[in-house]
Amino acid sequence: MSKIKFMNFTAEAIAEFLQGEIVGNPTIEINNISKIEEGKAGTLAFLANPKYNHYLYETEASIVLINKDFHLEKETKATLIKVENAYESFASLLELYQQSRSGEAETGISEKSTIAPSATVGENLFLSDFSIIGHNCKIGNNVRIYSNVSIGNNVSIGDNTIIQSGVNIYYDSVIGKNCMLHSGSVIGAEGFGFAPQKSGEYKKVPQIGNVILEDFVEIGANACVDRATIGSTILRRAVKIDNLVQIAHNVEIGESTVIAALSGVSGSSKLGKYCMIGGQVGVIGHITVADKTICAAQSGIGKTVKKSGEILQGSPAISLKNFQKSSVYFRNFPQLVQRLSDLEKEIADLSK
Amino acid sequence: MSKIKFMNFTAEAIAEFLQGEIVGNPTIEINNISKIEEGKAGTLAFLANPKYNHYLYETEASIVLINKDFHLEKETKATLIKVENAYESFASLLELYQQSRSGEAETGISEKSTIAPSATVGENLFLSDFSIIGHNCKIGNNVRIYSNVSIGNNVSIGDNTIIQSGVNIYYDSVIGKNCMLHSGSVIGAEGFGFAPQKSGEYKKVPQIGNVILEDFVEIGANACVDRATIGSTILRRAVKIDNLVQIAHNVEIGESTVIAALSGVSGSSKLGKYCMIGGQVGVIGHITVADKTICAAQSGIGKTVKKSGEILQGSPAISLKNFQKSSVYFRNFPQLVQRLSDLEKEIADLSK
Amino acid sequence: MSKIKFMNFTAEAIAEFLQGEIVGNPTIEINNISKIEEGKAGTLAFLANPKYNHYLYETEASIVLINKDFHLEKETKATLIKVENAYESFASLLELYQQSRSGEAETGISEKSTIAPSATVGENLFLSDFSIIGHNCKIGNNVRIYSNVSIGNNVSIGDNTIIQSGVNIYYDSVIGKNCMLHSGSVIGAEGFGFAPQKSGEYKKVPQIGNVILEDFVEIGANACVDRATIGSTILRRAVKIDNLVQIAHNVEIGESTVIAALSGVSGSSKLGKYCMIGGQVGVIGHITVADKTICAAQSGIGKTVKKSGEILQGSPAISLKNFQKSSVYFRNFPQLVQRLSDLEKEIADLSK
Repeated sequence: MSKIKFMNFTAEAIAEFLQGEIVGNPTIEINNISKIEEGKAGTLAFLANPKYNHYLYETEASIVLINKDFHLEKETKATLIKVENAYESFASLLELYQQSRSGEAETGISEKSTIAPSATVGENLFLSDFSIIGHNCKIGNNVRIYSNVSIGNNVSIGDNTIIQSGVNIYYDSVIGKNCMLHSGSVIGAEGFGFAPQKSGEYKKVPQIGNVILEDFVEIGANACVDRATIGSTILRRAVKIDNLVQIAHNVEIGESTVIAALSGVSGSSKLGKYCMIGGQVGVIGHITVADKTICAAQSGIGKTVKKSGEILQGSPAISLKNFQKSSVYFRNFPQLVQRLSDLEKEIADLSK
Repeated sequence: MSKIKFMNFTAEAIAEFLQGEIVGNPTIEINNISKIEEGKAGTLAFLANPKYNHYLYETEASIVLINKDFHLEKETKATLIKVENAYESFASLLELYQQSRSGEAETGISEKSTIAPSATVGENLFLSDFSIIGHNCKIGNNVRIYSNVSIGNNVSIGDNTIIQSGVNIYYDSVIGKNCMLHSGSVIGAEGFGFAPQKSGEYKKVPQIGNVILEDFVEIGANACVDRATIGSTILRRAVKIDNLVQIAHNVEIGESTVIAALSGVSGSSKLGKYCMIGGQVGVIGHITVADKTICAAQSGIGKTVKKSGEILQGSPAISLKNFQKSSVYFRNFPQLVQRLSDLEKEIADLSK
Repeated sequence: MSKIKFMNFTAEAIAEFLQGEIVGNPTIEINNISKIEEGKAGTLAFLANPKYNHYLYETEASIVLINKDFHLEKETKATLIKVENAYESFASLLELYQQSRSGEAETGISEKSTIAPSATVGENLFLSDFSIIGHNCKIGNNVRIYSNVSIGNNVSIGDNTIIQSGVNIYYDSVIGKNCMLHSGSVIGAEGFGFAPQKSGEYKKVPQIGNVILEDFVEIGANACVDRATIGSTILRRAVKIDNLVQIAHNVEIGESTVIAALSGVSGSSKLGKYCMIGGQVGVIGHITVADKTICAAQSGIGKTVKKSGEILQGSPAISLKNFQKSSVYFRNFPQLVQRLSDLEKEIADLSK
């Protein structure tokens, strides 16, 4: 039902753009893309996951991008373009397409929005309706701000950053260049800081720090990054946060770390670089997680991870291998207890 | 403190509407409703859950709806109305009440909102303030759009659909008839697609597909449904998604499946029809879950579920029965290990 | 990068305000604050957590707040101010600072917002742009409502309450005094109530109750509190709800209970007073949780907790001590099974 379409392109033109090699008909044309398992004539598909190899020989797609080193087992109907990395090449094509599309994008500053007089904005700002830019904000060049966005006072936003509709950014936040904030995300809300009183009640601890998102950070829809109590909550360069993720006050996340949906990082914890955190993972507060840590979905990281590159699973998280072994035993617990009971009987018999 | 009130209705009038049978006083009147355990004179309650049976003989409610086949153990003070299904009848009464109330609802198109000139809207549109309808949108008849709603370009919305305040709908989304989107929900944000590069960095994969919500779909507050990378993320007829749920790119969910709060379905997975997914459940990517699968809260579905109607629990999820047995053993782990140690001693003694 | 600054204050002035005792130079000045481990000249830090004691002797901070009863092991470079409770004193300073800052805050009612003619507002309302206050709303004194806020009909909001940008409040909600609702939170959306039909489909149950937030309640960013089916969902005095938390219909939460991020409480459950619920915890529906229950992150409370003050962990949750013991055995499951197998062999040998 999506009516998005490429213009017509020949295999030859695509191969040239991707610096790939054609196997088949160089003049065949495509005007859309498809998944290899749903390929139709006139579309381009790609093959990267070996699980899908068999589709290559069945697909109706006119052109398929494959890895250079892919070993063909039989003839294909499709024209092939061999490239270094089929997935990357495919992504490049999509990007080219999106770029051509963004040329059609709206521009200009809506009169239905508010820019505080003390705010400064760069060249080529796009500002849609019903958005507000607070006092002393500094907005860079080529920034795109969609509708119903609230930007508090003293916020700075770097060049080329895109703020989707319905985003809320609290005062003093610092957003880098080339960032993407998806709809409903909240940057800089007050962290959950309450000091227990003798009375048993809680007294709110003022949260006077801020949030810093470095360049190329992406924040998913309805995700939250809380401001620091003091200092800054920092997401380093190219950190990617999925939808509905919670980043608490004073957290620091190392560059290029990715965190999947519904995960939470508690206050003051520091995650390393290039970590991959699955969905619904929890990280306890005040710990450090080493670079390149990989953490399976639904895990709970309950203590500092010192060694780089560990793969963890479980709540509390242990090594993935151990967790998976222990999980099998957990599943077979009734049989194991039966074996124990049998032994008890046998010994009772032997001891008679 | 809720001041919502029915007008006065007699038991007779209610019984007639519900086609029920009165046991007690047909002229007794009610002007409000209550829970059976908190029933007060002048209110109507219902009894459906056997756990609450004893309240029937104590309640101060003037009228109680009960199932036709309910066996009375003693006299009740309340007038009873016997119906086929007390819960359904009660729901019908509430619906009638809400309908009468929605008659008071606001109508018309606010001049404080924006409708792109290229958009088309059906009859009887209600559009509140500070909302935006993008280029080439197609809005059906009797659609209600509350305040601060952002609707991107090329979105279509079917008849009778209600979009609550603060909803964000990205471009190209297709919303069916009779849908309800609750506040803060985000439809069509870009999926979490990043291709790992040799450098260890991630390159964003453009997400050029869309979201399709079929008729009678309900999306909870602050829930997210991501657009597909290619093709469509699809929620079939009458799918119900609770608050704060994450549906990733290219997921497909079968009709009448319900998913409770804080659950997430990862990319490209397909859930069957009539599934019931509890809260905080995670479904891994690229798997298929059979029709009528029931999944207990906090479970993690880590592999394809082939057999229809299975009941699952745990992370990773196994059959609910097995999980519950193994959980009991987990809780008694210290005693089990003690039994093992005792045996080791006994055998050591025997072997001497 | 945060440019937030105190004016210059002397140790003497601060000690006087806090009624503390100076050890060191009473005329030394600070104009900012810092964490003790990152202390710089010209800043004030505090020491409350014994883990950080050693930083006291290394910090470059000019002034450090410490507890009166702290035992100094050696000399410090910093000037110390001894107070009853260093953490509380620090919080008081921050509060003072925020108050001074809010003096700069904007005031007045924006003409770019909508107030229904039938609504009443108290003195000193601050209302930013693009917000809407519905029919028959009653807004107290000194209320602050930021931008892009949607407030439905018949909502009441008590004195001094702050509604951050992008909040959505459904009709009939009752918000107390001195509450704080963070961005993107949704109050009063319809609970997840669907009655299964014989056909296998679900019929929506109208949700005609409301939400009541008592005084001093704080709701985190993008958190959701659903309206009751009948009656009210109630958060008692001083309840604190973190970001992305889900509170279902007809839940009641006792005063001063705190719930961390990404947790969910299912329909009709009642939590006691002074409970502390960790992150990603799930509470099943229709149960009661006793006062002062403490629940570790990622736990699942699956049945009523009768005894006050219990500490729980696991899914399903058991006592934290038992959970932690059983977790150790789970981690060592392979070795335990090996011991079992060894015993089986030995007995087989003995029985020969």
